[in-house]
Amino acid sequence: MLQGEVSSYLQAAREKHLQKLLELLRFPSIANVQGEGDQCGPCAAWLAEYLSGLGLKADVLAGEGKPTVIASLEVSSDAPTLLIYGHYDVQPPDPLELWDSAPFDPVVRDGCIFARGASDNKGQLFAHMMAIEACLQTSSLPVNLKLLIEGEEEIGSPYLEGFMAAHADRLAADAAVISDSSFFAEGVPSITYALRGLVYVELTVTGPSRDVHSGQFGGLVRNPANALAAMVASMHDAAGRVTIEGFYDDVVAETDDERRMWQSLPFEEEQLAASLGVEALTGGEDGCAALVRRWARPTLDCNGIVGGYTQAGSKTIIPARASAKISMRLVGNQDPEKIADAFKRFVAARTPPGVRSEVTVSAKARPVMLRRDSAAMRAAEAAMADAFGAEVVFIRSGASVPVTELIQRLLGLDAVLMGFGLPGDGMHSPNERVKLDQLWRGSIASAAMMHNLGAQR
Amino acid sequence: MLQGEVSSYLQAAREKHLQKLLELLRFPSIANVQGEGDQCGPCAAWLAEYLSGLGLKADVLAGEGKPTVIASLEVSSDAPTLLIYGHYDVQPPDPLELWDSAPFDPVVRDGCIFARGASDNKGQLFAHMMAIEACLQTSSLPVNLKLLIEGEEEIGSPYLEGFMAAHADRLAADAAVISDSSFFAEGVPSITYALRGLVYVELTVTGPSRDVHSGQFGGLVRNPANALAAMVASMHDAAGRVTIEGFYDDVVAETDDERRMWQSLPFEEEQLAASLGVEALTGGEDGCAALVRRWARPTLDCNGIVGGYTQAGSKTIIPARASAKISMRLVGNQDPEKIADAFKRFVAARTPPGVRSEVTVSAKARPVMLRRDSAAMRAAEAAMADAFGAEVVFIRSGASVPVTELIQRLLGLDAVLMGFGLPGDGMHSPNERVKLDQLWRGSIASAAMMHNLGAQR
Repeated sequence: MLQGEVSSYLQAAREKHLQKLLELLRFPSIANVQGEGDQCGPCAAWLAEYLSGLGLKADVLAGEGKPTVIASLEVSSDAPTLLIYGHYDVQPPDPLELWDSAPFDPVVRDGCIFARGASDNKGQLFAHMMAIEACLQTSSLPVNLKLLIEGEEEIGSPYLEGFMAAHADRLAADAAVISDSSFFAEGVPSITYALRGLVYVELTVTGPSRDVHSGQFGGLVRNPANALAAMVASMHDAAGRVTIEGFYDDVVAETDDERRMWQSLPFEEEQLAASLGVEALTGGEDGCAALVRRWARPTLDCNGIVGGYTQAGSKTIIPARASAKISMRLVGNQDPEKIADAFKRFVAARTPPGVRSEVTVSAKARPVMLRRDSAAMRAAEAAMADAFGAEVVFIRSGASVPVTELIQRLLGLDAVLMGFGLPGDGMHSPNERVKLDQLWRGSIASAAMMHNLGAQR
Repeated sequence: MLQGEVSSYLQAAREKHLQKLLELLRFPSIANVQGEGDQCGPCAAWLAEYLSGLGLKADVLAGEGKPTVIASLEVSSDAPTLLIYGHYDVQPPDPLELWDSAPFDPVVRDGCIFARGASDNKGQLFAHMMAIEACLQTSSLPVNLKLLIEGEEEIGSPYLEGFMAAHADRLAADAAVISDSSFFAEGVPSITYALRGLVYVELTVTGPSRDVHSGQFGGLVRNPANALAAMVASMHDAAGRVTIEGFYDDVVAETDDERRMWQSLPFEEEQLAASLGVEALTGGEDGCAALVRRWARPTLDCNGIVGGYTQAGSKTIIPARASAKISMRLVGNQDPEKIADAFKRFVAARTPPGVRSEVTVSAKARPVMLRRDSAAMRAAEAAMADAFGAEVVFIRSGASVPVTELIQRLLGLDAVLMGFGLPGDGMHSPNERVKLDQLWRGSIASAAMMHNLGAQR
């Protein structure tokens, strides 16, 4: 159990910490905003200043894309070094009309903070920052620290690989922790040991050089919106399988051990469906259990589609163009490069005469599988069990956290995915929230993990 | 040939008429705009005042939808009465960024006026108004006149049937002329004897109650955008035929006589394709000639599609909803009510579990076939040949002008579709224009048609 002094400090500092976190949540630090509305720079500067105030050496590093915050503190050359990752960028808040309060004007209600980024990822990152402060203020920091806080996670971290390769020395550590995930269920502290990969593409179909009259040209001109619909539709078969040639080649099936582990999890399909507002969980491939579809099977989803006249009322046109944003989640040894190429070939082969198609790839991340028996995993498991007072479960995630694979591949470390979020947090959705108790306990878990890691040395 | 006096008057009045037409074109009278931006009322008032100034009794009649202008003038109880139809509403101007000049700030360049509505339909309507003025000012109006100018043609005239039924007495006439169509080609004056009908629907597919994370829920939640794409794609088979059950039941094939007539028209597929910016005219059903597909076959086109994240960059969500606007053009005896019902049944049967679908019907118009041997047709043919100095061809149109069928059914008249537009006018497109010479000659054609009708009595 973590020494009482750190806990007491954290308990006493709650109001101060809450106010600081609200400050951080007020930055509309959306990674895909460019120009005047771009608040990533100010948000990164705030973080560096805050970490400097705690006593760390902190820098904002500009480069391609949004700036990155790096911070470090060495307590002893004998102590192990922990790399803590977080991201300060957030998902776009739209559709704005579905928010009960403004996404960047955080509101505390019912023990939760409601704001874009409250859970994903500013709140979870801040739990570690509270722990660092508590350890330093009680003179009990047992590890050397490095922090890597990026600003483009939500758009697939396009430049992070180059950045980490260039700063590999500065990021060298003995263990890494990422808190950018969720409990399997409330009351069930969870460590995530696998993530799906990602390929994000935009497919644009163009036809006539301008929108043309659907009466005068209907039956003559191939309609780009209909052509796009047909191409997107052809990406799945009737059983929900992706039809892109070679798509499943490098999928690795879940093990029997995993299947058993997942069957024992408190998973209520009907309840989840109801909470999402759907009659049943009918997505994905026929014949696979829900958690298998979510964690161990690849997917293809249209994230957005647009073309032609989309305002109120009617306009009788054949649109000049239509486009779709499509994300594919990858598992096992599926290679984002190979999948992106296969997608392009699929589209090229299915573009009908009379329209043109173009595919741009905007994000790629490899699937990740972490060792469940590493020292860092054991330190995190004990810390989570202590802080949340319950047995820890090991789960996969359907989402992608690109840095995880980069930490593994570029830094030679297995990261631990020790998330403090809850399934109801509404990450990426309107009314995103974080439960304050998860953050308070999360900060204790963070301090406890540092303690456990230090004790292992 | 029309007496020289009317021609001379029209020639002398060109600059004055141009300025008045530009005034009319400055109203952004878009039928599907409601509330503050709605300029249909002021546009209707301008028309009524202008017609009063010419000496007609003119009223703006409010009712459901946008106001309607009715005007009349009786010269003699012995003279035949001509009903002239036009519409003052215009298509929405977007995409605005593709206009070279502002759509409601008309510009005269290269002998053309560029503005939304220049050709469709304010310019063509104004040609008749110039003719009326010229006949009145030269004391040579040979017919009684009635004008019906509506404000909802571009959204399918949803309330026109009720309006015309209620005012059938006031609209009673011996012949009707509609100038809301185009020449087959420049230099080829054309009379349109058939129009396609229309059903316009919006199909909305809804899934989760909010946008959800495509990583956490991809493979669990059915994606409404993918489901919509699949439903829209399934509306056509591989040969371009519409798959809705019963869709082709009431189609009437073109006659041999028509096919021969169309083969003699100066139609250059490659040239039309190039002017539209497409490599070939590949829309519609395989195995049908282009003009048959355009005029004598029904179609189904997606006019707009939208769902999920559509701004720049990426957002990894499964959208809560996606929707498509779809127009179907009808021919022969296809009944809009029956087709709309068949569409609804098709959608209901193909809505997969896990999403819900809804269809709203926003416009319906029956196909129209006019007698080519009516007195009005003969009067119009001679007038067009005179005014434009070339042989008149009889063509169909792929578009819909709902009033035509209502004039036929409710008033018992065959209308003549005597259009002054040109194929390059860009109706419904950015940079819509009208060639001034078409309007000057159109006004002579209008006066000549009145003269011919009067002479027939």
